[in-house]
Amino acid sequence: MGERSSNQMWGGRFSAGPDAIMEAINASISYDQRLSDQDITGSMAHAAMLAAQGIISGEDLAAITDGLTRVKAEIDGGEFAFSAALEDIHMNVEARLRELIGAAAGRLHTARSRNDQVATDFRLWVRDQCDAAVEGLEALQKALLSQAEAGADWVMPGFTHLQTAQPVTWGHHMMAYVEMFGRDKSRFADARARMNESPLGAAALAGTSFPIDRHATAAALGFDRPMANSLDAVSDRDFALEFLAASSICAMHLSRLSEELVIWSSAQFRFVTLSDRFSTGSSIMPQKKNPDAAELIRAKIGRIVGANVALLTVMKGLPLAYSKDMQEDKEQVFDAADTLMLALAAMTGMATDMTGNKDALEAAASSGFSTATDLADWLVRELNLPFRDAHHVTGALVAMAEGRGVDLPDLSLEDMQSVHDGIRGDIFDVLGVHKSVASRTSYGGTAPDQVRTQIARWKETLA
Amino acid sequence: MGERSSNQMWGGRFSAGPDAIMEAINASISYDQRLSDQDITGSMAHAAMLAAQGIISGEDLAAITDGLTRVKAEIDGGEFAFSAALEDIHMNVEARLRELIGAAAGRLHTARSRNDQVATDFRLWVRDQCDAAVEGLEALQKALLSQAEAGADWVMPGFTHLQTAQPVTWGHHMMAYVEMFGRDKSRFADARARMNESPLGAAALAGTSFPIDRHATAAALGFDRPMANSLDAVSDRDFALEFLAASSICAMHLSRLSEELVIWSSAQFRFVTLSDRFSTGSSIMPQKKNPDAAELIRAKIGRIVGANVALLTVMKGLPLAYSKDMQEDKEQVFDAADTLMLALAAMTGMATDMTGNKDALEAAASSGFSTATDLADWLVRELNLPFRDAHHVTGALVAMAEGRGVDLPDLSLEDMQSVHDGIRGDIFDVLGVHKSVASRTSYGGTAPDQVRTQIARWKETLA
Amino acid sequence: MGERSSNQMWGGRFSAGPDAIMEAINASISYDQRLSDQDITGSMAHAAMLAAQGIISGEDLAAITDGLTRVKAEIDGGEFAFSAALEDIHMNVEARLRELIGAAAGRLHTARSRNDQVATDFRLWVRDQCDAAVEGLEALQKALLSQAEAGADWVMPGFTHLQTAQPVTWGHHMMAYVEMFGRDKSRFADARARMNESPLGAAALAGTSFPIDRHATAAALGFDRPMANSLDAVSDRDFALEFLAASSICAMHLSRLSEELVIWSSAQFRFVTLSDRFSTGSSIMPQKKNPDAAELIRAKIGRIVGANVALLTVMKGLPLAYSKDMQEDKEQVFDAADTLMLALAAMTGMATDMTGNKDALEAAASSGFSTATDLADWLVRELNLPFRDAHHVTGALVAMAEGRGVDLPDLSLEDMQSVHDGIRGDIFDVLGVHKSVASRTSYGGTAPDQVRTQIARWKETLA
Amino acid sequence: MGERSSNQMWGGRFSAGPDAIMEAINASISYDQRLSDQDITGSMAHAAMLAAQGIISGEDLAAITDGLTRVKAEIDGGEFAFSAALEDIHMNVEARLRELIGAAAGRLHTARSRNDQVATDFRLWVRDQCDAAVEGLEALQKALLSQAEAGADWVMPGFTHLQTAQPVTWGHHMMAYVEMFGRDKSRFADARARMNESPLGAAALAGTSFPIDRHATAAALGFDRPMANSLDAVSDRDFALEFLAASSICAMHLSRLSEELVIWSSAQFRFVTLSDRFSTGSSIMPQKKNPDAAELIRAKIGRIVGANVALLTVMKGLPLAYSKDMQEDKEQVFDAADTLMLALAAMTGMATDMTGNKDALEAAASSGFSTATDLADWLVRELNLPFRDAHHVTGALVAMAEGRGVDLPDLSLEDMQSVHDGIRGDIFDVLGVHKSVASRTSYGGTAPDQVRTQIARWKETLA
Repeated sequence: MGERSSNQMWGGRFSAGPDAIMEAINASISYDQRLSDQDITGSMAHAAMLAAQGIISGEDLAAITDGLTRVKAEIDGGEFAFSAALEDIHMNVEARLRELIGAAAGRLHTARSRNDQVATDFRLWVRDQCDAAVEGLEALQKALLSQAEAGADWVMPGFTHLQTAQPVTWGHHMMAYVEMFGRDKSRFADARARMNESPLGAAALAGTSFPIDRHATAAALGFDRPMANSLDAVSDRDFALEFLAASSICAMHLSRLSEELVIWSSAQFRFVTLSDRFSTGSSIMPQKKNPDAAELIRAKIGRIVGANVALLTVMKGLPLAYSKDMQEDKEQVFDAADTLMLALAAMTGMATDMTGNKDALEAAASSGFSTATDLADWLVRELNLPFRDAHHVTGALVAMAEGRGVDLPDLSLEDMQSVHDGIRGDIFDVLGVHKSVASRTSYGGTAPDQVRTQIARWKETLA
Repeated sequence: MGERSSNQMWGGRFSAGPDAIMEAINASISYDQRLSDQDITGSMAHAAMLAAQGIISGEDLAAITDGLTRVKAEIDGGEFAFSAALEDIHMNVEARLRELIGAAAGRLHTARSRNDQVATDFRLWVRDQCDAAVEGLEALQKALLSQAEAGADWVMPGFTHLQTAQPVTWGHHMMAYVEMFGRDKSRFADARARMNESPLGAAALAGTSFPIDRHATAAALGFDRPMANSLDAVSDRDFALEFLAASSICAMHLSRLSEELVIWSSAQFRFVTLSDRFSTGSSIMPQKKNPDAAELIRAKIGRIVGANVALLTVMKGLPLAYSKDMQEDKEQVFDAADTLMLALAAMTGMATDMTGNKDALEAAASSGFSTATDLADWLVRELNLPFRDAHHVTGALVAMAEGRGVDLPDLSLEDMQSVHDGIRGDIFDVLGVHKSVASRTSYGGTAPDQVRTQIARWKETLA
Repeated sequence: MGERSSNQMWGGRFSAGPDAIMEAINASISYDQRLSDQDITGSMAHAAMLAAQGIISGEDLAAITDGLTRVKAEIDGGEFAFSAALEDIHMNVEARLRELIGAAAGRLHTARSRNDQVATDFRLWVRDQCDAAVEGLEALQKALLSQAEAGADWVMPGFTHLQTAQPVTWGHHMMAYVEMFGRDKSRFADARARMNESPLGAAALAGTSFPIDRHATAAALGFDRPMANSLDAVSDRDFALEFLAASSICAMHLSRLSEELVIWSSAQFRFVTLSDRFSTGSSIMPQKKNPDAAELIRAKIGRIVGANVALLTVMKGLPLAYSKDMQEDKEQVFDAADTLMLALAAMTGMATDMTGNKDALEAAASSGFSTATDLADWLVRELNLPFRDAHHVTGALVAMAEGRGVDLPDLSLEDMQSVHDGIRGDIFDVLGVHKSVASRTSYGGTAPDQVRTQIARWKETLA
Repeated sequence: MGERSSNQMWGGRFSAGPDAIMEAINASISYDQRLSDQDITGSMAHAAMLAAQGIISGEDLAAITDGLTRVKAEIDGGEFAFSAALEDIHMNVEARLRELIGAAAGRLHTARSRNDQVATDFRLWVRDQCDAAVEGLEALQKALLSQAEAGADWVMPGFTHLQTAQPVTWGHHMMAYVEMFGRDKSRFADARARMNESPLGAAALAGTSFPIDRHATAAALGFDRPMANSLDAVSDRDFALEFLAASSICAMHLSRLSEELVIWSSAQFRFVTLSDRFSTGSSIMPQKKNPDAAELIRAKIGRIVGANVALLTVMKGLPLAYSKDMQEDKEQVFDAADTLMLALAAMTGMATDMTGNKDALEAAASSGFSTATDLADWLVRELNLPFRDAHHVTGALVAMAEGRGVDLPDLSLEDMQSVHDGIRGDIFDVLGVHKSVASRTSYGGTAPDQVRTQIARWKETLA
């Protein structure tokens, strides 16, 4: 957002009077130049179709194609002089094309308007971002899978309310995020499939009387089909909103993992050590590692949700068809997409580089009577005690251990039998944290074997 | 929101001290009682599975099933005394079950916890709302289809910037919304498919050591499969967020149609007459019809987007697994779902009852040189003029007509030829608004034939 | 939100057809009955003014006043039968008044409309909430002041990035929140002052031709003055939005303190022990205390920000004057206000009851070379070393201590002089955490004396 | 947002590996360079205080001041080479200062850290934006005042539900917005006063042991006083949120005026003609004027509310003191402030240039029985009819007029007396729209005299 709008600049431009103000609020070229590839690709497809339908001549097509190729080369080479007076990317490209090839440039605009053109360009751009999100999410899933594989049987506290509830495995915890990011991927895939219809040929809003072939341009641009209503084609931005919604949910998942990394990096937890590449240090406290990247990723949900709210607000209550308000769609989506891709890349880097502190994790898991549930379940399962009684016995044993300053596995069988005389020695099979996690073999449970099954499934999926 | 929290009540309860405050903030029974059906259905499936796996006895199963049936009857009959001291729906049902059947009630809780129980209940509830949204949207589409069919060839102004741009057909305009609501339906369908996995059996967070069969409970509850990670199963609420996101986008579409109805109902437009049932009058100005329902539907996007933002904010940065913060998920989704279903029903009613004012629509479409584009297109198509020249000629003709206070079709052929001598008499074939719309035969265009094709396609889809 | 809108009910009502749908979306009595006090108070002021101006008779005034008193008694006594058919609180009260006193009831409506009536009622209600927020915030400040006073000189880690940066005092940390909540109070006070203008007498939108005295009704209702433009008076809801904005910022502050309490309650931190009243336990793990209230308060920012977004969205783009959309203002504000007051009460309770664990705080503060900055500052101040050199020396000493597994104060003078021979024995005056905090005597710094100065200032302010 | 983050660039940078990703997410210099003025001003005040307190020498002060002056000149002259490797504006300035003046640059950092430095810089920047908002709002108020003055007695329809309710005056309508923008100004003024406290000297978070004078630096920078708690000083961003909240409400007001201008510019309303400078035309439809600026201003509420939500989300649940998440504060506020100032400037331009179409306004006001309320009020006031009867008579007269296709003033006295024989000839004094508005003389009413009183009051205030 920065440079484009330094205060001094506005001041200066505004003092130049109303024309400068209008240009400042009206021109979009400062940001919609990002659509240049999509704009030129769309124009080429349109021109080819016009020629195939006999609406323009082969000579015109050749001139247009050649001219657009040159415009693209100029833009890619950084030689193109974008002009705010020409407002937007469409006019900038068209004006340069006219300079290069003359009157034929005008024929490119046959049976087309800026309304369907920008709808097409933007849809193509957002479609690419769906693909990029899927790619970024898969990279992150792979990094998490590696972590899960390395520590499939490391034990750590499973928290509820940030209080230790039961021991779980590191691999299981990592795989929880693999599942979340898997659903995120499918949301982007669904959004992509739904938006993959071509607005091109809707013209200003009503369609056209030229004998165009919208199916041909749709196919040329990789769309599944043309949109079936021209008013709808130029009026709606639900595809952009769906991308923002999927991004918001994904950013929520990222914020949760980030929060965990920040807490886990604290001196009090020490569950994880982040690499120097994704943290910053202190010149005088070398042991201090600030989890900057994790904090920034945690924060990124703000601007993504902000963009989502912004575009919903813009679209609220707009009558059909195109209104200028809709020009506000692009910066929000550009920023949210850039933010998401950067956050995914940074999280992938952190997840790849980080080191789980196996000993600290196990020590934390082994404290706080974390296997009390296992004890109670054993009483139910083996002695057939009703839950209420099992809980009573367990509470008494925990209180006994707490009183002696030890944990549950440190009590003797005699101690235990003094509370309930049916307890047998095999109760100790469930009281250690490793035994506890190994016992949770229900589908999707934390037992290392279950975790490895899920890892194997995902590795195949992601291969 | 109202009654539950009258100011006086808070005052009174707060003065009763900290226990009353804690109960007020902590108990969820005032709203999660809406999950009673889901809770009981889930418990029955769980009990049946426990018995099938030999974890509980057949007698226990019979007692539990009978007891739950009675609890359900009490709730349905309005005889159940919900207790805030018992906090939530799960505890309320369980406590009553214990009263009814004694110790066997406790066995129901084997291999389950409130964490996977509430995740299951809420997922079932939201799944139903996806179905309800699809149903509501189909009813609305049918109402709009009827409107489209009735006025497939009525002409009306096609607006950009709320300025007349080109004539379109009433049917075409109605069908634009049919398309939008069709995409909304598919968003709810995708959300439903993605959320249709069972959390049941995840237990507190780690799975369980009891030999449960999660695939069986999943199948019994209509889920496609159990969720593959127990931590994920109890921790995520992305399914609720996806429902809210789809609802937000749908509410955006509704707000646009509502805005149009408000504007179209004004004395200045008079494009549409709303039925008395969905508007309110004035005792002294009988001609005045306030489009109350349209305004309220327009406003409803506020609370739906608000709910979406609320839940995203709640979930931001929560470490795994369950945190109490997540209790805030339900009221937002309940309110958004109720709001959406009500808005869909009211819009369906309005769309069914409203009358397009054919003559006013045509008169508006016929003014403002709305066929200038047709004229320019004719010059390009028939005389092969470059666009720039075609626009120049058209502008001159519009200026001539404007000078004489007439519209384009009112100029004579001689008038036209005085501007460009190549113009032929068949130019008049495109200058009338009916001819204009009839000419826009590109796929998805506004020509009545195109509109009827799309109507036919949708009627088949919705049959 | 709950009961009012159970799914079955909607289903049932909707099947009853369009009239039921319209009533469901249009009637506001289910929630605006909370304005009954304000409505009756406003009506009494209006009637008194009408009589004083000779617009109604003294007899009518007496009848109206008497009737309204009886209506109020019925409502307060729970005997009033609210009717959805009568739509809103104004019509409900008016209809009952007519039953009680006959034709005179009609005269109450002279020179008034529902538009200025609801604007007045709602403004009075929100004004009260500003006062309630100030009161709730002061109670919370007092609880925090007590904590600060008790531990003005307890040392604890001062975190950046959740990493120990420098020792601070418990009192200082508590007082940081006292400052934040102090600014929150002033925001509510400013909002109250700005909204304290009377809409009454604006009538439908244009004012009235009756010789009313708006200054009199304004004064009677405690307003500073009448609003100066009748269109503005019935059209704007910025006062409600300002209340929501102040509430959102306050909820942000509450969420930060809640997050700290959740983290501080973890087994890994153990900085604080919450009382049983504001936490929940586990029947089998008696040492486990779930910080439920803290988590719920942390989450409440969601619904408050959601309400803020909702009302901004509703108001976006509404033409003047009254539109029915604005009926959506009340539920959002009611819910946000209830939520805020409850969160403040719960936080006050928690802050009153909680116990800082002095020893754990000091132990955490004393680890991690937390006085490295003090050491570097001593080198700059006492030896006049440039910062860069001071940091180099400090880093070397920290590395030496880390290598030996000790903290800075455990190094000997000789050790230190081996790194820089100018170091003198008085360097140890800054290396202990108590000495460190005592040295930070700059205004607003963490030194206990500074903290006590601020405590004293606030105690006076809040006395 | 555009250039900084083109997709290709990210692609390229990311392929360069983790260091590039970390720099991309971590460095803020691309946007926080906008704080260079504030940063240098703050440093100068800090250095002067350090010298005055004897903490640094006079020579160091001279070198620092001279060096900073040169840095500022380089930045202002566009010669400064900002470096992303140096992360932020503070490090960039400091590094350059060191190049220019050597070791003395290091002493500038005595008793200061980046945490209080950025808090100070940003507060100064936002404070300036409050002033800019007030200035921009006053310019807009003046433009509206001119419109109000020109048309103080023009009649136009007063709408409720976009239906004509009663006639009002153009001046009255303009003045409604003058009131709204007046409250917006006072919100920015309150925010400015509340934020005008100095964080400087809070150092990293705990204050400092150097004998600094925070009151002196506060005074030098125009702050009212130093902040009273150093933890609070570096941790809170409520001042930025309050700016965003005030901006959101102001943007809501702007969106409403914009919506009116869009509707009023339609061919159906023709209430206003916008100047060519703030609208765009069509090359072939010269009569068409698209209200682009109005539409864009209407949309701008989206990104401002989005920024507000974004920063609230970022700040949610952050423990004290500084967390890196807070780096996300600046871009949101920069963009919202730029957007608001641009929207205010554009609206001022439009309001200055636009022309109310007096005749069309009056014609619209005169139709639709807009004086029915006046008639009813006359019956109550002059004949002492109860409201119910007055409404009955009015309804009958309106129905009679409607049946004849005329408006109320067109009925004869005999016609009227046939409905109620008490009606006298002076009833016609209230039936014309000019008479109607002239009669609404209650304080703040629409009578031209009332409007002129308010205009005079505001002209004095704004003089």
